[in-house]
Amino acid sequence: MQVSRGLEDVIIKTTSLTFIDGEKGILRYRGYDIQDLVKASYEELIYLMLYGELPNKEELEKVKGIINESYEVPESVINVLFSLGRSCDPLGMMETAFGAMASIYDPKWDRNTDKETALKIIAKASTITCNIMRSKEGLKPRTPEPSESYAKSFLRSTFDREPRADEIRAMNASLILYTDHEVPASTTAGLVTASTLSDMYSCIVSALSALKGPLHGGAAEGAFKQFQEIGSPDKVEEWFSETMKEKKRIMGFGHRVYKTYDPRARIFKELADSLSSKNPKAREYYVIASKLEEVGLRELHERKLYPNTDFYSGIVFYSIGFPVYMFTPLFALARMLGWTSHFIEYVEEQHRLIRPRAAYVGPDRRAFKPIEERSKKV
Amino acid sequence: MQVSRGLEDVIIKTTSLTFIDGEKGILRYRGYDIQDLVKASYEELIYLMLYGELPNKEELEKVKGIINESYEVPESVINVLFSLGRSCDPLGMMETAFGAMASIYDPKWDRNTDKETALKIIAKASTITCNIMRSKEGLKPRTPEPSESYAKSFLRSTFDREPRADEIRAMNASLILYTDHEVPASTTAGLVTASTLSDMYSCIVSALSALKGPLHGGAAEGAFKQFQEIGSPDKVEEWFSETMKEKKRIMGFGHRVYKTYDPRARIFKELADSLSSKNPKAREYYVIASKLEEVGLRELHERKLYPNTDFYSGIVFYSIGFPVYMFTPLFALARMLGWTSHFIEYVEEQHRLIRPRAAYVGPDRRAFKPIEERSKKV
Repeated sequence: MQVSRGLEDVIIKTTSLTFIDGEKGILRYRGYDIQDLVKASYEELIYLMLYGELPNKEELEKVKGIINESYEVPESVINVLFSLGRSCDPLGMMETAFGAMASIYDPKWDRNTDKETALKIIAKASTITCNIMRSKEGLKPRTPEPSESYAKSFLRSTFDREPRADEIRAMNASLILYTDHEVPASTTAGLVTASTLSDMYSCIVSALSALKGPLHGGAAEGAFKQFQEIGSPDKVEEWFSETMKEKKRIMGFGHRVYKTYDPRARIFKELADSLSSKNPKAREYYVIASKLEEVGLRELHERKLYPNTDFYSGIVFYSIGFPVYMFTPLFALARMLGWTSHFIEYVEEQHRLIRPRAAYVGPDRRAFKPIEERSKKV
Repeated sequence: MQVSRGLEDVIIKTTSLTFIDGEKGILRYRGYDIQDLVKASYEELIYLMLYGELPNKEELEKVKGIINESYEVPESVINVLFSLGRSCDPLGMMETAFGAMASIYDPKWDRNTDKETALKIIAKASTITCNIMRSKEGLKPRTPEPSESYAKSFLRSTFDREPRADEIRAMNASLILYTDHEVPASTTAGLVTASTLSDMYSCIVSALSALKGPLHGGAAEGAFKQFQEIGSPDKVEEWFSETMKEKKRIMGFGHRVYKTYDPRARIFKELADSLSSKNPKAREYYVIASKLEEVGLRELHERKLYPNTDFYSGIVFYSIGFPVYMFTPLFALARMLGWTSHFIEYVEEQHRLIRPRAAYVGPDRRAFKPIEERSKKV
């Protein structure tokens, strides 16, 4: 009887989506290096993940068309978000909104419109994420308007302003960098749900519920809060020693898979450097983060701990103007594509109901006694 | 490279909760046979599952007290249910309501109040389930009122009437029979979520999303719809032959684990027989079901297919007055106890982040081409 704790090294599926070499620091989607893909538009990546190849112009326009037509979500879903109140947990709000979508749309797998459903989910996730922030900030609801760019439509509706070109580029790149990472807990929870042939919205609900956990989705927020806690670059050394002494983790450092510099972290660092140069408060955090990276690399590289994707991403989001509580919802927004791609791959190519076993280690058969015969003390 | 398809025979955890012997038709919770436990009150079972032993009177009163004090759910959650509209999927509504609870309560695992949180979830699930039906039926919201019985409080608020003693007994027994069944997909999805240390409400959300799938939670509804389709006992033989010819499944027959009569099915049959005797329409379905069982046993016992727990349960629920769409929410209501017991067992005793792997089988490294250089046809 061998318990597979944490399902470590258990292979739950095959995939043609994402390849990771943690020793060499390689991440590829469908064979393309992340460093190259980050130059593409998010819509090109959407096509690549769902249909297997990079699109030509015609194919790209078709995907953009479906997304641009699908931003609308039912009024009741928007009302749900705005009725929950400003103090609500944003990931919980996202679960609620997608739960409402599941109760309204219910697109079962057997309808065989999976890829279009995925495109609709990606569009509607933009609307939901935008309105989570707008609800928490006490603003009015807005629906992203069609444009030539998913990233641009999202930023414009969220902030009620015309985003700068470098902000759109950074948002576009962030979506690509967070798109997929094989089968972490959120994807796994969603796959279990997909395996019952539940609807695709409910699979997203499952994935969001898992992402909400502090061991999964909260790392970018955790990393950024460290920079806030440190407060200034000259306090980094002291803070680092204290943290090491207390045997606490440095958030945004180290990764179960990467034993070298996370290729996504390098790109996020460049984006953070460039964007924060236009936002003095964000710049302070960037300087603190760079210093912490320097100290961390000096002290931790022997333990193969390097900055991961969440180390600098918060500074990018903060530079654009996102509150810290939005970092995890933004992760979720980007991951919609990875999640739906995995669900479709699993159900279409290799479907089987997921049903592991538990090994019984409890008491042998016991005789039932009615309550009158049970002693007063246990 | 060995893919564990459907995680079959992968042991995800140990458990002291539920023991199943599918060959002998044995189901035990914490060592007690289901046949004995079904005589207890659901509150006794709640205590047994969460605390490990059957309660004495004092302990039972304490549990009842916490449940009776916890039926209230925030007004915004009730509003969400009533704003979704009468045509919404009831399991999707349940996901939405628990998502809203996750966004409001957010009881993280590290607060160490797990068992009380579980009791609160069980109480609030009664309120939510009651109001899913009331919303879909166009009735006003109601909150279960404290009473000496969880089953009674639930029936009284759902139907706005004093339930009969035999209805309360049947509801109580149904809750016990559906309480737990080791780690099917819903429990597994919830465990993956629990492993990220997400809050307990979100774990329930994950489990509900998986239960919604037709391969998991929909079997009682599927079985009952067969009886409706057949229409009268003298059409059973013909319907059965047709169904066999078309190689369709008989819903409510056969089980991945049980290779003999499901011990729960036997108890549900007795309950269905007794309750339907007071409801002529339900009696028709009971007679059809008995005939279908007879034909099924005659024709299918060589393939070790026997009635499972979902075969007669719908007739019990229908006899009490539940619409067919409520069968899966009632399953979910009963399973809250099994789910939370497994989550607590996993996080307290054997916690590890659940992170399986996917085996990459996609294209090798490919050179990125900008869109201008991609051919018009793929």
